Amino acid sequence: MTTSNWILTAQCPSRLGTIDAVTGLLYQHQHYVTELNSFDDCHSNQFFIRAQFRVEEAFDEADFRRQFAVRAGKFGMQWRLRSTADKPKVVIMVSKFDHCLNDLLYKHRIGQLSIEIPAIISNHPDLASLAEWHGIPYYHLPVTAASKAEQEAKVMKIIKDSDAELVVLARYMQVLSSNMCQQLEGWAINIHHSLLPGFKGAKPYHQAYEKGVKTVGATAHYINDDLDEGPIIAQGIEPVDHTYYPQDLIAKGRDIERLTLSRAVRYHVEQRVFLNGDRTVVFAD
Amino acid sequence: MTTSNWILTAQCPSRLGTIDAVTGLLYQHQHYVTELNSFDDCHSNQFFIRAQFRVEEAFDEADFRRQFAVRAGKFGMQWRLRSTADKPKVVIMVSKFDHCLNDLLYKHRIGQLSIEIPAIISNHPDLASLAEWHGIPYYHLPVTAASKAEQEAKVMKIIKDSDAELVVLARYMQVLSSNMCQQLEGWAINIHHSLLPGFKGAKPYHQAYEKGVKTVGATAHYINDDLDEGPIIAQGIEPVDHTYYPQDLIAKGRDIERLTLSRAVRYHVEQRVFLNGDRTVVFAD
Amino acid sequence: MTTSNWILTAQCPSRLGTIDAVTGLLYQHQHYVTELNSFDDCHSNQFFIRAQFRVEEAFDEADFRRQFAVRAGKFGMQWRLRSTADKPKVVIMVSKFDHCLNDLLYKHRIGQLSIEIPAIISNHPDLASLAEWHGIPYYHLPVTAASKAEQEAKVMKIIKDSDAELVVLARYMQVLSSNMCQQLEGWAINIHHSLLPGFKGAKPYHQAYEKGVKTVGATAHYINDDLDEGPIIAQGIEPVDHTYYPQDLIAKGRDIERLTLSRAVRYHVEQRVFLNGDRTVVFAD
Amino acid sequence: MTTSNWILTAQCPSRLGTIDAVTGLLYQHQHYVTELNSFDDCHSNQFFIRAQFRVEEAFDEADFRRQFAVRAGKFGMQWRLRSTADKPKVVIMVSKFDHCLNDLLYKHRIGQLSIEIPAIISNHPDLASLAEWHGIPYYHLPVTAASKAEQEAKVMKIIKDSDAELVVLARYMQVLSSNMCQQLEGWAINIHHSLLPGFKGAKPYHQAYEKGVKTVGATAHYINDDLDEGPIIAQGIEPVDHTYYPQDLIAKGRDIERLTLSRAVRYHVEQRVFLNGDRTVVFAD
Repeated sequence: MTTSNWILTAQCPSRLGTIDAVTGLLYQHQHYVTELNSFDDCHSNQFFIRAQFRVEEAFDEADFRRQFAVRAGKFGMQWRLRSTADKPKVVIMVSKFDHCLNDLLYKHRIGQLSIEIPAIISNHPDLASLAEWHGIPYYHLPVTAASKAEQEAKVMKIIKDSDAELVVLARYMQVLSSNMCQQLEGWAINIHHSLLPGFKGAKPYHQAYEKGVKTVGATAHYINDDLDEGPIIAQGIEPVDHTYYPQDLIAKGRDIERLTLSRAVRYHVEQRVFLNGDRTVVFAD
Repeated sequence: MTTSNWILTAQCPSRLGTIDAVTGLLYQHQHYVTELNSFDDCHSNQFFIRAQFRVEEAFDEADFRRQFAVRAGKFGMQWRLRSTADKPKVVIMVSKFDHCLNDLLYKHRIGQLSIEIPAIISNHPDLASLAEWHGIPYYHLPVTAASKAEQEAKVMKIIKDSDAELVVLARYMQVLSSNMCQQLEGWAINIHHSLLPGFKGAKPYHQAYEKGVKTVGATAHYINDDLDEGPIIAQGIEPVDHTYYPQDLIAKGRDIERLTLSRAVRYHVEQRVFLNGDRTVVFAD
Repeated sequence: MTTSNWILTAQCPSRLGTIDAVTGLLYQHQHYVTELNSFDDCHSNQFFIRAQFRVEEAFDEADFRRQFAVRAGKFGMQWRLRSTADKPKVVIMVSKFDHCLNDLLYKHRIGQLSIEIPAIISNHPDLASLAEWHGIPYYHLPVTAASKAEQEAKVMKIIKDSDAELVVLARYMQVLSSNMCQQLEGWAINIHHSLLPGFKGAKPYHQAYEKGVKTVGATAHYINDDLDEGPIIAQGIEPVDHTYYPQDLIAKGRDIERLTLSRAVRYHVEQRVFLNGDRTVVFAD
Repeated sequence: MTTSNWILTAQCPSRLGTIDAVTGLLYQHQHYVTELNSFDDCHSNQFFIRAQFRVEEAFDEADFRRQFAVRAGKFGMQWRLRSTADKPKVVIMVSKFDHCLNDLLYKHRIGQLSIEIPAIISNHPDLASLAEWHGIPYYHLPVTAASKAEQEAKVMKIIKDSDAELVVLARYMQVLSSNMCQQLEGWAINIHHSLLPGFKGAKPYHQAYEKGVKTVGATAHYINDDLDEGPIIAQGIEPVDHTYYPQDLIAKGRDIERLTLSRAVRYHVEQRVFLNGDRTVVFAD
C-alpha cells in the first residue's frame, strides 16, 4: 500500500464558496487534509489557499485534476497540484561570493531542501570546484557589456533545457536585462543585501554604514523588471552598532543573506508563496 | 443591514471529514470565511480548527448552533462560537509589581485588547489608585498561611460573581493552593519570569544569573496543579551578557514579561489557543 | 562616609594619549573605575570615551574638573562629568497617541528611568488626566499653521524655564519649524515609526504595507533640520506577514515604538550616546 | 615600515590601578589603543580587560612582555599578548552531523575565522571527503565502551602534537571521560542543542517538543567535568510553534547550532572570552 502526500494550491478573486471548492472535493475523495491555510485579502479581494493532504490508496491524479478543474473553473482559480515526493529543479546563478551557494548546496546535500540542482551558472570560473565536489554541472559564462545579450541567451537556454521551475540568483552580481527579467518574472528569486526598500542598488552595506543604522538585513524577492523592487518573500535582520565598519557589516551580512535566501527558496518549493500584485502571501512555517 | 463577525473553534480526535464539517456548513449558510486555520497533530491524533467568518444579514445564532451541534456530535467535537463584538470578562490578580498590570490596563484602555475587566484582585493595597484611575473595582484581599483557604474562597467568589471567563495572574506572588489550581485549570494564565522549564520556582532571574546564561525570557502558561508546569502559550526572550546583575535582569525582564503576558491574553481572548494535553496549539498572528 | 558614582564622558579627534588622559587622572585621584568604554572611529578620526567611577570619600568635584580641564584642553576634548544621583530634566511632547508617553511615565514612576519630568507639552488636551495622575504639569498649546511660530515660542519657553536638558517627541504629530529644529539639534529625541531611512514622512506603516515588507520597525533619532534624517540612536524591529493590514502594523508598532524610544532616552540620560557627524556612537548595555 | 596589531588581555582580583597598569604602559610605549573593554565584576571581585592596539614601528615584543610582567605581577594578573596576524590552531571533533563542521570550514576557507585547522577527528569515517576537499587531515578514530580510554589517548595525542590551543566539539556525539574533560577544561568548546540549563543530556529537541516550548535554542560552552554544565559562551534562539515535530526542531536547530558555535569560536580566538568562575565574561562585538 502506498501512501502519498500532495499539495494543492489555488488563488482567485474572493468569492463565497472558494474554500468549499477545495475542502469539499478532498472530503468527497476521502483524502485526509494534514495542513490547511487560507487567506482572504480584503484590499486586493484575492483569495489564497494551500492544502496538504494524504492519499492512502493509489491516487488517480488525472481524474482528480479533471474534477478539480471543473470547480476551479467556476471561480477563475489559478491552481497547482503536486506530490511532495516531486523534487523541483532549481538553477542557481552566482558570481564569486559563495556564502549563499554554499548554504543552498549544503541544505540540498543533506536533504533539508528537497530540490534538484541541474545547473550552476556563473560569470566567473571561481566556484567550479565547489560545484564539482557536489556533482553539479557548472557553466562558466563570462559576460561583458557587449556580450550581455548573447550571454543571457545562453543562460536562458540552460535554464530551459534543464526544465527548471525556479532560478535562484545567489549573489549573481550582474544586472539582468529587462528582457531577461520579464522572462523570469515570478519564478526567479534574488537576494539583496539590505532591508528593501531601504538601500536599493549598489553597495547597500556601505549605504547602511553612512546612515548609521542600528539594524542591517537582507531581502529575498522575486525579480521583476524594476531593479530591487520585486515582491518580497522573506527578510532577515540583525542588530549592529557603531563598531561595525562596512567590511564588518559585509561579514555579518553573509549569515543573514544565506539564511534568508535559503528560507525563501524552501518556501517557494514547498508552494508556500503566492503573488498578490506587488506583494506576496507566504504561508510560512 | 448589520454585518457581524464570528469565530468558530473546534477540536476533536483526528478523523476524515472534520474540516468539511466546519467549512461545509459555513458554505451552506452562505457565511464568508475570512480566516481559517487548522492543525492535525499526528502525535496526539487531535484535530484543531479555527474559522473566522462574516455574516452579512441577521444571524440566526440559535439555529446555526443547533445545526453545527449535529455535525460536531458525529466527531466528538468540543466547540465554541462567539461574536467578535463580544468582550470576554477577564479578572486580573496582582501583588505589588505592576508592569504587567499596567500593560494590560493600557491595552484595554485603548481597545487593543478587546476585553472587559470586572475586577482586579490583590493581596496588597498598593495598586488601588492605578485601578481606580482606570475605573476598575479593586479588591484588596490580604493573605497569610493561616487565612489562605478563606482568602482563596473570597477570590473565587469574586471571579465567579463577575462571570469571568479568564483569570490572569499578572505577577501575583502567591502560590495557589492545589484546590484553586484545579478550579482554574485551563482558564487562568500565569506569567513566569523565565524560559520554562528552565528556572522554575522562586527568583528565576537570580538563578539565571548564577548559571551565566546569555538569554533571559518569560513564559505565559495556563496554570495547572503542578507549579510552573502548565501548558505554555507564549514565550519572550532577550539577549543579555556578563554586565547584567540580577537587578538588571529584573529590569530588562519587565518588558519581556508584560509583552509576553499581553500577547498570551490576546491569543486566548481571540480564541487562538487550544489545549493539547500538556501542550498548546496556538494559531498566532 | 559617602560613596558616590560619577560618569565622565569625552570626545575629541583621535590622538595618542586620549585614554591615558582619562584613566591616568582617575588613577591618580584613587577613583575606582567600574565601567569603561572607548571607541576610536578610524573613518571620522574621532575618539569617544565613557568612564563610570566610584568615589569612596568626599569628592572635590571642582578640583577634579579643574584638573581634567587641563588634560582635556590638550586634546580639544568636549567632555562632561555628572553624578549618577543627578536626575536630568526631560520635557516630553506628545499629541494624542499615548503609548510612548505611557511607557516613559511608567518607567519614570518605578524609577527604571532616572529622570525628572518637569513638563508634558501637547497640542491637544486629551492626555491631561494621564499627566495629572502622575503629578506632572501638562501644557496644552494648540497649534495651527498661522499660530505655529507663536506656539513654538511658547514651547521653547517652557523647555528653557524648566531647565530641561532633553526634549522627547513621544509621537508629537507636528513638523517642527526649521528654527525650532536648529535650537533643539542634538538634545531632542524623536521616535519615527519606521526603520529609517526607509519610509520617511507621513504614514510609514501604510507605506510599509504597500511595499509588502516582512519586517516593521521604529527608529529613535536626534532631530536636526532635515526631517527624519537626524542621527539614529536606536532601532527596534518585529517580523510581520501578509495578514497584517495597516491597522495591524499600527497596533504591533506601538510596542516597538515605545520600547525603542524608552531605550534611546535611557541611553541618552546615562550618557551612553555621542554624536559622530550624522551618526552616533552608543555604548549600549 | 610595518604596522602590527596586538591584543592584550588580563584578569585579576579587583583593585585600584588595574586599568592604569594596562593603559599607562601602552601610552608610555606610544602604542595606539584601537579598542578597549574592561569589566569589573562586583560579585566575584574580578577585573577583566582587553585592549587591542596598533604598533607603528618594529615591536620589541620581548621587552614589552618583560615590562608588562612587572606591572601584572603587582596585581596577580593572568595575561596574554598576541598579534592579530597570529592564527591559533584549532582541532575540530565531529561525528556524523556536519552542519557545524561545514560552517566552521566555510568561515575558515573565506578567512572570516582567522584560524588554522591542523586536524579533524571523528569517530566515524563519513566526513573524510569533506575534510579532504578543504585540505585538512582527517583522523578516523572509532570508539567503543571498551576502547574509550585508548581512543581518547590517541585523540589527545593528535591535539597535543598539532599544538592546538582550542578544541571544538562540533556535534561530537560521545560523552568524554572525566579524565579527558579535565585535560580540556577551559580550552574546549562544545555545542549543545538546547538553551542550557534547560534540556540537558540526550535528545534535547525531543525534550523541548514534549514540554511544548515556543522557543528553541543552542548553547556553546566550555566543557568541564560536569556534563552540559560548563561556562556558557554564547546562546542562539528561534521561535517555534505547535507545528514543529521533533524532526522539524532538529532541522531548524541546525542553523541555530552552527551560528552559535561559530560565534563562540570566533569570540574565543579573538580573545574576547574570559572565565569567571562558572560563568564567562564575553566582550562581544
